[in-house]
Amino acid sequence: MNLDWHGIDHITKVDPAKDLPEDMGIIEQTDLIIVGGSDGVTSENTLAVIEQIRAQSSEIPVFQEPYRDRHVSFETIEAVDFIAIPAVYNGDREHFVEKHVDLFTGVASKPTELLGSDVPLLGDLIASKGRDLVVEMTEKIIGEGYVIQNPDSKAAGVSGVDTLYTPDQVAGAALATEAFYGFPLFYIEYSGTYGGPEDVEAAAEYLNDTVLLYGGGIRSKQQTEEILAAGADAVVVGDCFHDNADQYRETIPS
Amino acid sequence: MNLDWHGIDHITKVDPAKDLPEDMGIIEQTDLIIVGGSDGVTSENTLAVIEQIRAQSSEIPVFQEPYRDRHVSFETIEAVDFIAIPAVYNGDREHFVEKHVDLFTGVASKPTELLGSDVPLLGDLIASKGRDLVVEMTEKIIGEGYVIQNPDSKAAGVSGVDTLYTPDQVAGAALATEAFYGFPLFYIEYSGTYGGPEDVEAAAEYLNDTVLLYGGGIRSKQQTEEILAAGADAVVVGDCFHDNADQYRETIPS
Repeated sequence: MNLDWHGIDHITKVDPAKDLPEDMGIIEQTDLIIVGGSDGVTSENTLAVIEQIRAQSSEIPVFQEPYRDRHVSFETIEAVDFIAIPAVYNGDREHFVEKHVDLFTGVASKPTELLGSDVPLLGDLIASKGRDLVVEMTEKIIGEGYVIQNPDSKAAGVSGVDTLYTPDQVAGAALATEAFYGFPLFYIEYSGTYGGPEDVEAAAEYLNDTVLLYGGGIRSKQQTEEILAAGADAVVVGDCFHDNADQYRETIPS
Repeated sequence: MNLDWHGIDHITKVDPAKDLPEDMGIIEQTDLIIVGGSDGVTSENTLAVIEQIRAQSSEIPVFQEPYRDRHVSFETIEAVDFIAIPAVYNGDREHFVEKHVDLFTGVASKPTELLGSDVPLLGDLIASKGRDLVVEMTEKIIGEGYVIQNPDSKAAGVSGVDTLYTPDQVAGAALATEAFYGFPLFYIEYSGTYGGPEDVEAAAEYLNDTVLLYGGGIRSKQQTEEILAAGADAVVVGDCFHDNADQYRETIPS
């Protein structure tokens, strides 16, 4: 991942299917934006949100985190800094290896079809660029090692999570990310509930090159700072960005 | 992986549970040795074989490819250049993600127990070195992205392989290795049968930083050279090393 992580400690997750806040200026207080969601998301509404973010701030890095292949298009790839693909350690086989091989099989063998382009000119362009285009596309794709720790969350259901990890297992998954899989990001996801610093501390012990993210239930500066002090590189804040701009501002660290 | 791959195009897989050839001098014609097997393998017979190889040649790189955690000991880690752990793309969940998290959870949280050491002094040493030892150990561990293409092989049975990959899927798994998982090795395993160059050609198209290995049914120089011409960095020769020294010599490329 060719991104200078320095100074990134607050991330906002924006769901393209939800209403944006009246004052989009609040995003200037966050350090990076991840665009993605499950229900009602399309490549078109994803692109529209990315363009609104870019119009507000041309500086802030933007990632797309697609839940489905069809959320990605040639245009969304062009528009973002990185496409971040979750690999869910405590999920089912589909969400660790199967969907990744399917994705890269698609990218390698039929990029036009994968990207849903039926525009003849674009199809020809993709066909003519062939292998070079594949390499260019894959340079934007990065893996996120995920551990999902809220069994009642939508994310857990979608990913087939039926086991929560102990802090020792979180440390093991973190070390596997750092030393074996080499994903640039490791993400502890409590999705809607505040999980506290324990898992973050366990993971941080073994992460050196890998960026450590925590998401879930952050509603105050005190929680943000507790998670950062435990060793996370950044917190991810989602729901309140859409629902409650005042509370969102409260999550920004000093 | 800190290994200069230049000049490595013939690899010998040595099973510690099988008889070694009368003339161990034949290993001087191969470029790298992988020690591993399933039935009857222990960390003790693994170490004994590594020591015999080292006694014959101090130059040749030696990898251990363990099938079980208990095949690895503090001594085998010290004795080899790398511990190569298969991640089987078309295997079951245990053989892609589960055993890796278990391994690294063990390494992170209880290295003494993992390494089966009940020698008090060694246990104390491990406990006192703590995190530094964990980091040192993990630097020797590398991932091998595996595709197993012989459904009747022992390897397929052990790894839960029930689907063979098309050449497009082999290309997809290769690209996923190169661009997403970042394992330094990608291994196409036909285990006992000669699979020909088609899968190797498909994978080679998308591998740049990743070393491409082919194993299975190599019994002649013509087969070795066909696989190398298709884009493999090296062939892996196993059975005839133990069974038939003359045939083994025939597999060495010019």
